[in-house]
Amino acid sequence: MDTPSPVTPVTVREVGLRDGLQSIARTLPTAHKLDWLRAAHAAGQREIEVGSFVPARLLPQLADTAELVAVARTLPGLVTSVLVPNLKGAQAALDSGADAMLLPLSASHAHSLANLRKTPDEVVAEIGRIRALRDSSGSCCLIEVGLSTAFGCTIQGRVDETEVLRLLQAVLDAGAERVGLADTVGYADPLQVGRLFERAFKVAGDRLACGHFHDTRGLGLANVFAAWQVGVRRFDACLAGIGGCPHAPGASGNVATEDVAYLFASMGVPTGLDFDALIALRSQVVQWLAGEATHGAIARAGLPKTMKEAA
Amino acid sequence: MDTPSPVTPVTVREVGLRDGLQSIARTLPTAHKLDWLRAAHAAGQREIEVGSFVPARLLPQLADTAELVAVARTLPGLVTSVLVPNLKGAQAALDSGADAMLLPLSASHAHSLANLRKTPDEVVAEIGRIRALRDSSGSCCLIEVGLSTAFGCTIQGRVDETEVLRLLQAVLDAGAERVGLADTVGYADPLQVGRLFERAFKVAGDRLACGHFHDTRGLGLANVFAAWQVGVRRFDACLAGIGGCPHAPGASGNVATEDVAYLFASMGVPTGLDFDALIALRSQVVQWLAGEATHGAIARAGLPKTMKEAA
Repeated sequence: MDTPSPVTPVTVREVGLRDGLQSIARTLPTAHKLDWLRAAHAAGQREIEVGSFVPARLLPQLADTAELVAVARTLPGLVTSVLVPNLKGAQAALDSGADAMLLPLSASHAHSLANLRKTPDEVVAEIGRIRALRDSSGSCCLIEVGLSTAFGCTIQGRVDETEVLRLLQAVLDAGAERVGLADTVGYADPLQVGRLFERAFKVAGDRLACGHFHDTRGLGLANVFAAWQVGVRRFDACLAGIGGCPHAPGASGNVATEDVAYLFASMGVPTGLDFDALIALRSQVVQWLAGEATHGAIARAGLPKTMKEAA
Repeated sequence: MDTPSPVTPVTVREVGLRDGLQSIARTLPTAHKLDWLRAAHAAGQREIEVGSFVPARLLPQLADTAELVAVARTLPGLVTSVLVPNLKGAQAALDSGADAMLLPLSASHAHSLANLRKTPDEVVAEIGRIRALRDSSGSCCLIEVGLSTAFGCTIQGRVDETEVLRLLQAVLDAGAERVGLADTVGYADPLQVGRLFERAFKVAGDRLACGHFHDTRGLGLANVFAAWQVGVRRFDACLAGIGGCPHAPGASGNVATEDVAYLFASMGVPTGLDFDALIALRSQVVQWLAGEATHGAIARAGLPKTMKEAA
């Protein structure tokens, strides 16, 4: 494995407005979400997952997703994505004019059944129907599949790598245009990450385009680094590390956007992000979510003197 | 760079009793320190830094170092090390019967002057005198030099890599038998860590035998992983991540022993550590230090189901 050249830019996709907020009981008012969206765009974020087209009775926190997409579409250069659990959600995503829809598929059978009441292969079939719907609609909305629990599962335990790779091939065959691997429960270690992404690149080539890591057990940034070493150039993250982990109360969930940005900035890898703007937005979000668990190292410690000198 | 085989064991040296406790204002009673020492040994730790031979008026927290060494020497298979700032401390270390003495040398001139009122080269000369003293004493006490601020400095900012390598050669020439690189202030990034350790191995060969990382900005474990990737097999760590960072209040300091142990366990790298024993000791130490900042992810989140199954 060669250490990659540090000059290729990395994209940090903000998923706080969806992944983060869906696991917080309170509903952030739409006006605050729109402020967050605009400020994230102003800080240089060019991919933002703004919500999810799931029934509002299941996730009232995200009931304003269509409204957010409408505003996001007006922000120059922004790739607006939404999470979509099924064909009905996909239709809503197409209607909204989002640029991309993210379809989750759990590599763990037990997790898939518990979460979606469908086997992974039933979800693959639904992905095929969503691709047909998208094609017949004439829309250019990109179809991305996120393979969740790809590194292990709190219900099932171990998830076989060959099963992850089989499902990866299956979703590509079903019409996914972009795929990613997600450590949904914070079980991954950096060796496993490097190995599985290397194998996945052999299956998906450059359609493998996202790493989604949680910091539940402190290895979030080590895993981001390991994925980057084998060629991943796009990562999900939540500002202030919101999102939590329902299986480990008090533990952190998603890697924090500002910490991922710091990791890459410290290595000299361009992300297009304005650090001060990101940290200012983080303070605002933490204030809106007062009382909720937030995480993140760089906001506590501040930038090193060496980086301030370089800036 | 090839990913190393995960079968070579890694040593996690406990430095909490010295590096951790010296930055906490209160003094942990000797009886508690001895309990900690014995429990750490029982949990499988085979290298422990038990204190420092500095004047008690400067560090009253570590005034019982000789007493700790005396007990540590009775624990089977334990390598007992002490920190030593100068010739006088070295004499005390030799008198105590410690197995190894750690001599700090700051690669940052500004840090060296502020901390020790000596230039790095004056410290190198003192290391030569300490080597001569050790040799004439007939003791086998190993001389290890830790190059602090090797990745940057809060006072000076950038620390030139060629200066780090020059000092590394100088301390080897002066008689150091083992050397390590330390990110004293949490400035390192994993690319820098891999690069500098690779260059340092070319200078010191297998005498380069320690990585000392802080988690101040969230990159502690990513840096441990990066150093491991290029061949480092011995790391300093503090139980519960005590040690703090005087330059960034609220930020974490040393990487947490239990989190480093988890990183390696998750990758299948043997450390000889008993996880449950380590976590039980951590709870005890946190209780003794109630009110002090402690850190660590795995103690909050618990081991993953996959690892429990493997155990």
